Amino acid sequence: MNQIKETAYKSGGFIGKYQRLIKDEVIPFQYKVLRDEVEGAEKSGVVENFINAGMVLRGEKPYGDFYGMVFQDSDAAKWIEAAAYSLANFPDSELEEKADNLIDVIAAAQDEDGYLNTRFTISDKEKRWTNLLEAHELYCAGHMMEAACAYYEATGKDKLLKVMLKNTDCIYKRFIEEKNGGCSGHPEVELALMKMYHLTGENKCLELAQYFIDERGKDPDFFKNEAAKRNWTVWGNNASDTAYMQCHMPVREQSTAVGHAVRAVYLYTGMAELSAKTGDKELLEACKTLWDSITKRQMYVTGGIGSTVIGEAFSVDYDLPSDTVYAETCAAIGLIFFGSAMLKNEIDGKYGDICERAFYNGVLAGMALDGKSFFYVNPLEVIPNISGKSPNYRHDLTQRPKWYACACCPPNLARLVSSFGKYAYGENADTVYCHMFADGEVTFENGVEMTCETNYPYDFTVSYKVKKAEGKTLAVRIPGWSKKYELLLNGKILGTRVEKGYAYIEVTSGDEVKLILDGTPRFVYPSSKIHSLTGSVAVMRGPLVYCFEGKDNEDDVISLSLKTGEGLSVSEFDSDLLGGTVTVTASAVRQTAFEELYSDEEPQTCECKAVAVPYYVWGNRGEGQMRVWMDKA
Amino acid sequence: MNQIKETAYKSGGFIGKYQRLIKDEVIPFQYKVLRDEVEGAEKSGVVENFINAGMVLRGEKPYGDFYGMVFQDSDAAKWIEAAAYSLANFPDSELEEKADNLIDVIAAAQDEDGYLNTRFTISDKEKRWTNLLEAHELYCAGHMMEAACAYYEATGKDKLLKVMLKNTDCIYKRFIEEKNGGCSGHPEVELALMKMYHLTGENKCLELAQYFIDERGKDPDFFKNEAAKRNWTVWGNNASDTAYMQCHMPVREQSTAVGHAVRAVYLYTGMAELSAKTGDKELLEACKTLWDSITKRQMYVTGGIGSTVIGEAFSVDYDLPSDTVYAETCAAIGLIFFGSAMLKNEIDGKYGDICERAFYNGVLAGMALDGKSFFYVNPLEVIPNISGKSPNYRHDLTQRPKWYACACCPPNLARLVSSFGKYAYGENADTVYCHMFADGEVTFENGVEMTCETNYPYDFTVSYKVKKAEGKTLAVRIPGWSKKYELLLNGKILGTRVEKGYAYIEVTSGDEVKLILDGTPRFVYPSSKIHSLTGSVAVMRGPLVYCFEGKDNEDDVISLSLKTGEGLSVSEFDSDLLGGTVTVTASAVRQTAFEELYSDEEPQTCECKAVAVPYYVWGNRGEGQMRVWMDKA
Repeated sequence: MNQIKETAYKSGGFIGKYQRLIKDEVIPFQYKVLRDEVEGAEKSGVVENFINAGMVLRGEKPYGDFYGMVFQDSDAAKWIEAAAYSLANFPDSELEEKADNLIDVIAAAQDEDGYLNTRFTISDKEKRWTNLLEAHELYCAGHMMEAACAYYEATGKDKLLKVMLKNTDCIYKRFIEEKNGGCSGHPEVELALMKMYHLTGENKCLELAQYFIDERGKDPDFFKNEAAKRNWTVWGNNASDTAYMQCHMPVREQSTAVGHAVRAVYLYTGMAELSAKTGDKELLEACKTLWDSITKRQMYVTGGIGSTVIGEAFSVDYDLPSDTVYAETCAAIGLIFFGSAMLKNEIDGKYGDICERAFYNGVLAGMALDGKSFFYVNPLEVIPNISGKSPNYRHDLTQRPKWYACACCPPNLARLVSSFGKYAYGENADTVYCHMFADGEVTFENGVEMTCETNYPYDFTVSYKVKKAEGKTLAVRIPGWSKKYELLLNGKILGTRVEKGYAYIEVTSGDEVKLILDGTPRFVYPSSKIHSLTGSVAVMRGPLVYCFEGKDNEDDVISLSLKTGEGLSVSEFDSDLLGGTVTVTASAVRQTAFEELYSDEEPQTCECKAVAVPYYVWGNRGEGQMRVWMDKA
Repeated sequence: MNQIKETAYKSGGFIGKYQRLIKDEVIPFQYKVLRDEVEGAEKSGVVENFINAGMVLRGEKPYGDFYGMVFQDSDAAKWIEAAAYSLANFPDSELEEKADNLIDVIAAAQDEDGYLNTRFTISDKEKRWTNLLEAHELYCAGHMMEAACAYYEATGKDKLLKVMLKNTDCIYKRFIEEKNGGCSGHPEVELALMKMYHLTGENKCLELAQYFIDERGKDPDFFKNEAAKRNWTVWGNNASDTAYMQCHMPVREQSTAVGHAVRAVYLYTGMAELSAKTGDKELLEACKTLWDSITKRQMYVTGGIGSTVIGEAFSVDYDLPSDTVYAETCAAIGLIFFGSAMLKNEIDGKYGDICERAFYNGVLAGMALDGKSFFYVNPLEVIPNISGKSPNYRHDLTQRPKWYACACCPPNLARLVSSFGKYAYGENADTVYCHMFADGEVTFENGVEMTCETNYPYDFTVSYKVKKAEGKTLAVRIPGWSKKYELLLNGKILGTRVEKGYAYIEVTSGDEVKLILDGTPRFVYPSSKIHSLTGSVAVMRGPLVYCFEGKDNEDDVISLSLKTGEGLSVSEFDSDLLGGTVTVTASAVRQTAFEELYSDEEPQTCECKAVAVPYYVWGNRGEGQMRVWMDKA
């Protein structure tokens, strides 16, 4: 089963609109940020760092010192990767030239032995590889590998790919040949090496990925011993907190998702990619157990993960507060990577269900509708004057900031959206898989060509028009949330084989497969084990989690409670509202405010309506209350 | 209006039982801790520090260095203070001898100029008074002054009082005569100086209290400038975070309670004590505003204050989470100090209402029923596996630990309970005030003698038998929570003047005044502005907040919701249950657990009963769930 090339997918509809936004707003803006051309924005120094590193290597005096975070280089990588996917969707010679030029600058910053990292090239060469715990050298390498693969796939240009193959040699020498031991404090290179391997067939990539995954947690004291040997630190990270970086035990023994959430899902993605390639059953079992640990006990209804700001981390089972939540955008993105990698191991609708949940809620909410501001943290409830202000909620902002000093989420979101096709489809020799729905054209390596027509997630009919297919099977995920559905082949109702959430339909050229899902809005109830959500209820429609904003509800949503005994009503699609959306209205009760802090008198209430908008559009109309989980009346 | 001497009050009943517990368990245990005689307990070093300081002053080689926190001396002070109050209740020559001996050791540690602080006497003499921000010299002095006053009042012995008058001279010289500027980073000395002034009439005490209060916040850069002059720190406290120590503006301009909660209420107590003495209207207005800021917007239903662990501090209005709560025991104690000081400015039932709320809930919960373990932090909800474990809840323990390295709360609780009479009663020439109810005898300075008979807070009849009174008025607080009440004078119903929550009754010798309050249990509702409490309800009876523990509710209280439309029932008093208590039972609904994390199906429920016990007894039967604020069915 191979992932299809992203070049083969051209999307329209809802996803296409987002991809256009990424192209028009995010990529140009981020390009300027990298070059420090945005007035008033925090200095990035990314391009300057590469220029300076090149100068140092050529024996010239650099313009200045390294600037920024230790992982600053990865911003360039993520931008190139996003630009590559975007070029695949929307050819643009000007953008391509910019990317080519940046790649030239990057290539010039590579040392003779293939080492590529500006932090330890501009100065401190002797510190290379001495702080795997914090220095992010392998993390930055991983992102640049992903960029190299994407850019080659989009443009056929292999300059960056060659740079990264040479960099792979450098890493191979250090870790495999010289046996220096260790792995990266921040996983990422593992999944990137698997991409390099799939694209180039270079065995060193596979070997290295396997090495880093097997090595992890084997010696829980590795980082402690490493730290004892050096006299410098980046952030003073605690080398003994091995769970923070998933090094507390060998990965095959890990059964609970712990530590920094982005690191965790990046690691698990690498593991799942490796097991899909090698057929390593033990590794796959660990992945399945970790998947359950996240999705059955540690995931927000939005697909957000990593509930605590302390360490940007998983906390413990069923600890999913709506207000002090972290739920980093990058972690939800990483969960999609993980789910997508699991689908290369086994076809099961549960993975697509979660990928879709994370994408339409936890991820998309990370960006403003105009593509100009971003959330790093994604609360499920904000209260002006508390969120962003009280010490426990300082990270839970009510409005998206323009940019961050640690700018990981915006470019991560840009690359995910731009490469949506990679996650929407899969294939093997006989079968094409539709994991997620998106309007557009798709060409599979196994020869199948088809178009998908849909206004999903606002319309619940998805039509596949098969242009080309002979003796192939179309496997379409039936979302777990759809209480009923109809499948039509050329207009006739099908009694189809459905297995683990996928309907399997034999198709030939000219066929039209239509899937009609249930767009009835619904109440969703939390497990009674989530102590912060007892007595509450949320509203969903299709894959969209809804939320209640002050703007639609007299500036006060927290005194509303929903009457779950009465139905939910759906508005017409309003193309003028929040980029085009549909509201859902519930019958509700509003508690009348009283003066005291606590009262012995039962508060008065009045009947009213409560209006919800999709979670992904929240915070686009100024500051106000927002709540996903509402009290039940 | 003068505070009465605590020696005049001998209590029985509920308070008496607690005072006996303090005498039998807490004071002897703490004495051993101070002397490092408790096996397995963390080292205290308190007595050793005083011994070593004395040796240094005599030119001898000390046994060792200073040990412990910078405010370690204050543990000795709080113990002496608690022992003094206890001696007033229960004469005990052995305990008195121990206290006398400790006072001798302390007196020997006082420097020639009156300076008394072991941290800067054993060594680092040159660092004296150079770190008012962190070094707690004035804080420790304040506690020792309180101890000195209490010990003199209880025993008539003035050795420690003389030591502290000499210490006052030292402080006076430094701050008033030499005009070195500044005030303490941790307020406490202000209220202590007022006690010293009231007891001794020494004007320097009043002058100093006034100085420290007026000086505070006048120069918000004081601590920053002070820090710039030295090259050492205790904890690296941020000298710019002036709100943390209530130095962000002059105290008369402060209108919102902010910063470290204990510091705040200690300061406000000093302010209120000063305004009561000087009649400073502006200062009193500030106190009133700050009182409202706390009690109308920042106080837990238990009287706990300081909702965030970050800085052990007030956060913002209406931010009162039940689970990540801090609500330090010492802060609730300080709130009682503040309320009691306000009652010296104006008689208003609201102060007694809050003092009582804090005492019977936020304070008493701080100690186990056997007096052997203590909470520093007082959660209103604990969930095993989350509380004390998840990073955001690490401070919210499910069980009381035996002792703390920072041992402020247990001795603070001991001194408060032992001196309950000081807070229960007040007087002026014509009137005696009963702010809180407690079985016992009381003799006022204005000549009134009476006894109070009651099983409060488990019985709601309070009888005052006036032994001696001529032309005096008895002013009894009618609790705000009592929806109805009856007042009888010698068995006849009285139509009494009631003003601001107090009933005023003319009494003469031989009179019996009986107050019959409403002991009906009741539901209590939170303001709709407290986002973490919407949709929830609590149960109270009299001044007692109730809570639901797993032990009484099938090990699962969070899946219960209460039917507020149905009544609450009260059990018989069970002397075998939790030290003697009464349970309250509500009709409830229990949600049936389902497997998924989120479900589209409305969960099934079954009718049941939910049993509550008083909050102050929680956590005395092993680990389990506990919740004060329950969902409404």
